[in-house]
Parts: sequence; C-alpha cells; structure tokens
Amino acid sequence: MLILASQSPRRKTLLEWAEIPFEVMVSDTSETYPDTLPIENVPVYIAREKARAVASQLASAGTPQRMILAADTVVVLQDEIIGKPNSREEAITTLRKLSGNRHRVITGVVLLHDAGETAFADTTWVSFHPLTEEQIVFYVDKYQPYDKAGAYAIQEWIGVVGIQQVEGDFYNVMGLPVSRVVQVLNELGIRNQV
Amino acid sequence: MLILASQSPRRKTLLEWAEIPFEVMVSDTSETYPDTLPIENVPVYIAREKARAVASQLASAGTPQRMILAADTVVVLQDEIIGKPNSREEAITTLRKLSGNRHRVITGVVLLHDAGETAFADTTWVSFHPLTEEQIVFYVDKYQPYDKAGAYAIQEWIGVVGIQQVEGDFYNVMGLPVSRVVQVLNELGIRNQV
Repeated sequence: MLILASQSPRRKTLLEWAEIPFEVMVSDTSETYPDTLPIENVPVYIAREKARAVASQLASAGTPQRMILAADTVVVLQDEIIGKPNSREEAITTLRKLSGNRHRVITGVVLLHDAGETAFADTTWVSFHPLTEEQIVFYVDKYQPYDKAGAYAIQEWIGVVGIQQVEGDFYNVMGLPVSRVVQVLNELGIRNQV
Repeated sequence: MLILASQSPRRKTLLEWAEIPFEVMVSDTSETYPDTLPIENVPVYIAREKARAVASQLASAGTPQRMILAADTVVVLQDEIIGKPNSREEAITTLRKLSGNRHRVITGVVLLHDAGETAFADTTWVSFHPLTEEQIVFYVDKYQPYDKAGAYAIQEWIGVVGIQQVEGDFYNVMGLPVSRVVQVLNELGIRNQV
C-alpha cells in the first residue's frame, strides 16, 4: 500500500476521493531550501526531503521499502513565495496582498518507488476578487488559516466567495494534483480502483 | 431570508459554505426551452422559469414576496447541450464524448427581488483527460450520475482523477457561481456574513 508522507487532512481527503488506498507516515523535516533554488523547484525539493525522511525511517527500522508519496504546496505572488502565516497580522497582510490579484499555486510531488524516483510540479493560477477588509478579518478570525500556505484554503468560505477564476487543476490548489498522481501511478503499474 | 428555488444538494452546500442563510422552496417546471434560443441563454431561461414558479406559489398563497434565487446548469460540448442521462448506456456514451475533450459548463442564475430581476450566466471550461472504458463504467455503476448534467460531478471520483484543467469558477461547475452571486447580493444591499 502507498505511504503518504504528509499529515495534511486535505491530501488525505483527496486520495480518499480518488479511491487510492494509503497509510500515513511522517518524519519531521526542516522544510528549508537553498536560497539559490529557482522558485519553481522549491516544492519538489521540499517534497523530496519529506519522502526521503520517511524512506530513511523505514530503512532504519529494517522495514521493506514501500512506495512513498510526498507533496509540498507553495503560493507564489509576483515571484515571491508566500508561506504559512505566523500570526493574525501576517495572515491579514497576506490576504491583502492576494486580494484583487492573480497568483500561482505550485505543488511539487515526489514518488519514491522500486524503480527510483518520479517527481513533477503542477501549477494552477488563482485570481481573487478584490476582498474587503471586513471579509479578510472575518475569514482569518473564524477560519484561523495558520497552517495554510498563502493564508487561505480554496475549499473554505474565502475560496467560495472570494475567488474569481482558477486556471489549471483545482485539486492542485487543495494540495495535490490528484489526476496527475493517478496517471503516474498507472504508468508505474500501480493501479487505481480501475 | 433568501429562498433557494432548487433541490440540488450541491447548491445547498455551496450556499452553506458561503454562509448565506436560505431556505428551499421548489415548484415543478418543465425545464423545456424554445428550439430557437441560443445555447448561452438556455440556463438563464430555465432558471427564470424555476424562480417565477416559486414566486407564483408565494403569491397564490398570499405570502409576502421574498428574494428568490434559481439556477440551472448545462454542459455544452461542441455547441450541443448534453443533458442528464436517461439510462446507464446514455451516461456511458456521454462520458465517452467528454473523454479527452474540453467542454463548457454554463450556469444561469436568476434572482427575483423587490427591484425586479437580476440575471446572469457564468461559463467555465473543463478539460477531461482521456478516460478508459473501465474508468467510465466504474464511475457510472458506482456513482450513478443520473441526476447530473453531462453525467458527471466534478467533486466526485471522476472529477478528481479525470479532470485535467478548469478555466473559470470551479464552483460554477458544481452548480452555482457563488462568488458572483455574493457580489450581486452585496450590490442589492443583501449582506453576506460580512
């Protein structure tokens, strides 16, 4: 069975919707990356660290290697990565920046398997309507988006009322480009339900 | 409180996510339209019929008029409306047509209110990966998409594993372009939560 190297409830939900059986195993990683790394490569770099940490854990426990899936999602506004907000103020500031603008969401995916590694990144463009200060404060205080890259979740209130347009894989914005993951699994001979 | 003139569980969910209070009231309509009507105008035409049927029902009961929201969603492939499938075979045939292709989803929205009527339609483009025959049959038999325009729901298995790209409002494909509805409600002075 596939190992999902992520605690994200959204990634678990997406694999469930895709009917891909999995179990979760996570090892801590720093989620840091070299300053010189091009932004587009950051999510795959971090996902690779997550996947390798779990592989090491399996190896040191003497457990046979299994297929490991890791992912990392970043929000990029004007060539700057917008991380998870560390405070209420930072969440509010972030949403002010995203308001009325178009940004990129890039999810990097790394699959470790018998034949080595398969890695790819998927980009979706998201356009926010102009948000009012009241909307931003309401959302931050009610939904507490402190564990969300870019301080929002597309499937929550702010995503439903505030997003004008998505270009690309919607589920990529939720944290996993599931349809591409399924295609790669099929290519690797790992069958989905069908 | 807003009246939603639709039984669709997906539209109810979307209004709940948007935190718009509503109650449901439905009157039967034929959902037919004149042959000469341009495709783009069909969903608003049908939504208007739904809204007016509820308004008549309120009027004949002597109930004061309330704001009524109705919507209708059509799937359009190469200038042909693909309706709800009437049989297993039709559902399978429909998905074969959508497989590997890009189609439009148009939702028409009609709001009846004190100042008259506000109507608009919103279009989202959806691209399916090529689907295998096994995937199509699995989906139809397990998910029974007989009440779905185009024989699929974007938030179900087939949407998660089979859709390559969305261009436009994702929630429009689920049956209601919620963010535009919220904007119109705001313009009409009906406030959302914030």
